[in-house]
Amino acid sequence: MAATIDRVRSDHYVIPLEVPLTDSMHGEMRGFEIITARVTDSDGAEGVGYTYTCGHNGGAVHDILGREIAEIAAGEEPSRIAHLWRKIWWATHYGGRGGPTVLALSAFDIALWDLAAKRAGQPLWRHLGGADPAVKCYAGGIDLMLSADELIAQTEGNLAKGFRAIKMKVGRDDLAEDVAKVAAMRDHLGAGFPLMLDANMKWTADQAIRAARAFLPYDPYWLEEPCEPDDIPGNARVLAEGGLPIANGENLRTVQDFRNFIAMRAVSFPEPDVTNCGGVTAFMKIAKLAEAFGLPVTSHGAHDFTVHLLAAAPNASYLEAHGFGLDAFIEHPMEIRDGVAMAPERPGHGVNFDWTGLESLRRT
Amino acid sequence: MAATIDRVRSDHYVIPLEVPLTDSMHGEMRGFEIITARVTDSDGAEGVGYTYTCGHNGGAVHDILGREIAEIAAGEEPSRIAHLWRKIWWATHYGGRGGPTVLALSAFDIALWDLAAKRAGQPLWRHLGGADPAVKCYAGGIDLMLSADELIAQTEGNLAKGFRAIKMKVGRDDLAEDVAKVAAMRDHLGAGFPLMLDANMKWTADQAIRAARAFLPYDPYWLEEPCEPDDIPGNARVLAEGGLPIANGENLRTVQDFRNFIAMRAVSFPEPDVTNCGGVTAFMKIAKLAEAFGLPVTSHGAHDFTVHLLAAAPNASYLEAHGFGLDAFIEHPMEIRDGVAMAPERPGHGVNFDWTGLESLRRT
Repeated sequence: MAATIDRVRSDHYVIPLEVPLTDSMHGEMRGFEIITARVTDSDGAEGVGYTYTCGHNGGAVHDILGREIAEIAAGEEPSRIAHLWRKIWWATHYGGRGGPTVLALSAFDIALWDLAAKRAGQPLWRHLGGADPAVKCYAGGIDLMLSADELIAQTEGNLAKGFRAIKMKVGRDDLAEDVAKVAAMRDHLGAGFPLMLDANMKWTADQAIRAARAFLPYDPYWLEEPCEPDDIPGNARVLAEGGLPIANGENLRTVQDFRNFIAMRAVSFPEPDVTNCGGVTAFMKIAKLAEAFGLPVTSHGAHDFTVHLLAAAPNASYLEAHGFGLDAFIEHPMEIRDGVAMAPERPGHGVNFDWTGLESLRRT
Repeated sequence: MAATIDRVRSDHYVIPLEVPLTDSMHGEMRGFEIITARVTDSDGAEGVGYTYTCGHNGGAVHDILGREIAEIAAGEEPSRIAHLWRKIWWATHYGGRGGPTVLALSAFDIALWDLAAKRAGQPLWRHLGGADPAVKCYAGGIDLMLSADELIAQTEGNLAKGFRAIKMKVGRDDLAEDVAKVAAMRDHLGAGFPLMLDANMKWTADQAIRAARAFLPYDPYWLEEPCEPDDIPGNARVLAEGGLPIANGENLRTVQDFRNFIAMRAVSFPEPDVTNCGGVTAFMKIAKLAEAFGLPVTSHGAHDFTVHLLAAAPNASYLEAHGFGLDAFIEHPMEIRDGVAMAPERPGHGVNFDWTGLESLRRT
């Protein structure tokens, strides 16, 4: 008889940032909220997932995961992931679909896939149909307000950590300041070094086209989130008229959002975040959708889980490595050597939390 | 000096249903969750709003309203509604935008508009630029599983309550059963009586076109939510090929969602719900957007607030009256005479809750 779900446990932590971070639209971030999901089946096996926020709505995610999803999933077979995903989607659809609901669903879905891979005795990337465990990484900095000198100092640190591709923020009120920093970075890194730019939804389409053309001489690898995600035709214009490849996805919350961007030619590098797009189930659908359209798939956040997903995708582009202090509470944090991380061979995703250590950061 | 926000209070209640209700996609509903917002300013004036769910995620809405929005809005001027709306939108964007976040924002925004109209000494519909206080209403039944005889008995009750327009559910597994019930209702109500049909997202576009054509001989006023809201081209096909006007909106959560449906010719009757589309601010933008495209605006839910909004809209269509037991806790429930409700002349929206009575229904 197939095992059933005995328990869904949710926990809510805040990891404070030593130095507050700033990007163009989220304002000052003082800490990240982590909401963990632990699913225990009737055989006592456990799967683990998490999601995170940049400071708001973690309490709502915690409530949906621990109250609503726990109730909807109770007694179901955890190996019927596609069924459970759809059941939760429709049960919470009226007061859900996007927002904190899909963050909670993502954490739960990650835990189900972890459990399934563990029970199969396989690392997640092989369980998902394995492509290549060696995944190229880039360092994602949140550094909009740094000066060019500070940015270069941060970059030296990232190069020393093994990164061979780097993303910087743009979107200051004065475009000339952005351009000067991009020029300084290109000068420092040399021709051909992959340098990504991230505007965090700062601009209108016309502003973004102007900015993209100004960055073009410095050969950026991509320009990310030029406009807000609700303006798909605007994003499509930036791609068609700005001259740069466009990455987008950290603020898209459904497979259908990605379908719309991809089908309307509004994105070059689809960039789902497994913790907010609907989990492993949705991430892999998006990866395959991108592949069908001849596009690569990149990622945002949660590099520890995501290294498995890109290792399973034949169209994998770069993995974003985006530390915000969680590594201190993980047994085997991901290591990067010469720009590459290896998906681990431990069963499941192989991320083991220091639950005792996390206790001091509990929020709810 | 302008008053500032002293307090944002959130309360979470569940109103159980005497008889569980069923529609085609939400499954069995056993109760509605009400989350109320009370905003008090530094002069002691108070505005009141609420939102609701059909059974899930009310705890998340309560947490966002009482924890996040209260923090973001503290000390701000409550009369700068457009500023506050945008501040909350961006502060909660990463873990928000749709879902419970916009429900919480809606309740808060309603409270701000109530407060503003009260301070102006005006009923909300006049404060918003008044059109016509007499608003046509229809009875929205949740009756998918009723037999034709049961449906007609329910209809007799609605006619006795003063309704002169009625909506019924469709979307049973066997289309012939839907058609037989629609035929029986048309036969009972007579030619020309406004009869709306609501499929609650049941069908694919092809199924919906087949259904619309089968209903056409019975002259429905509109067909509502034929397909899921994420399939805008599918909804547009149903409108273009099915032969019936299409109503849609209770599951659209942003002005941009409505813009997409309207601009892509996927809806005939935009149907925002003030408690889940972003409040009065968003509802009135959607009403004006519809008007600019030559479309009427109808509504979903919360008829007690919404009667003011349609009374302020020159392009108002029918108001949905959708009782689920809340009337028992309101001082002056909306009355319908000969199919029409009058927007009240009391200051603000004029809805006064029996807070003591609600206490017995507290959930969180």
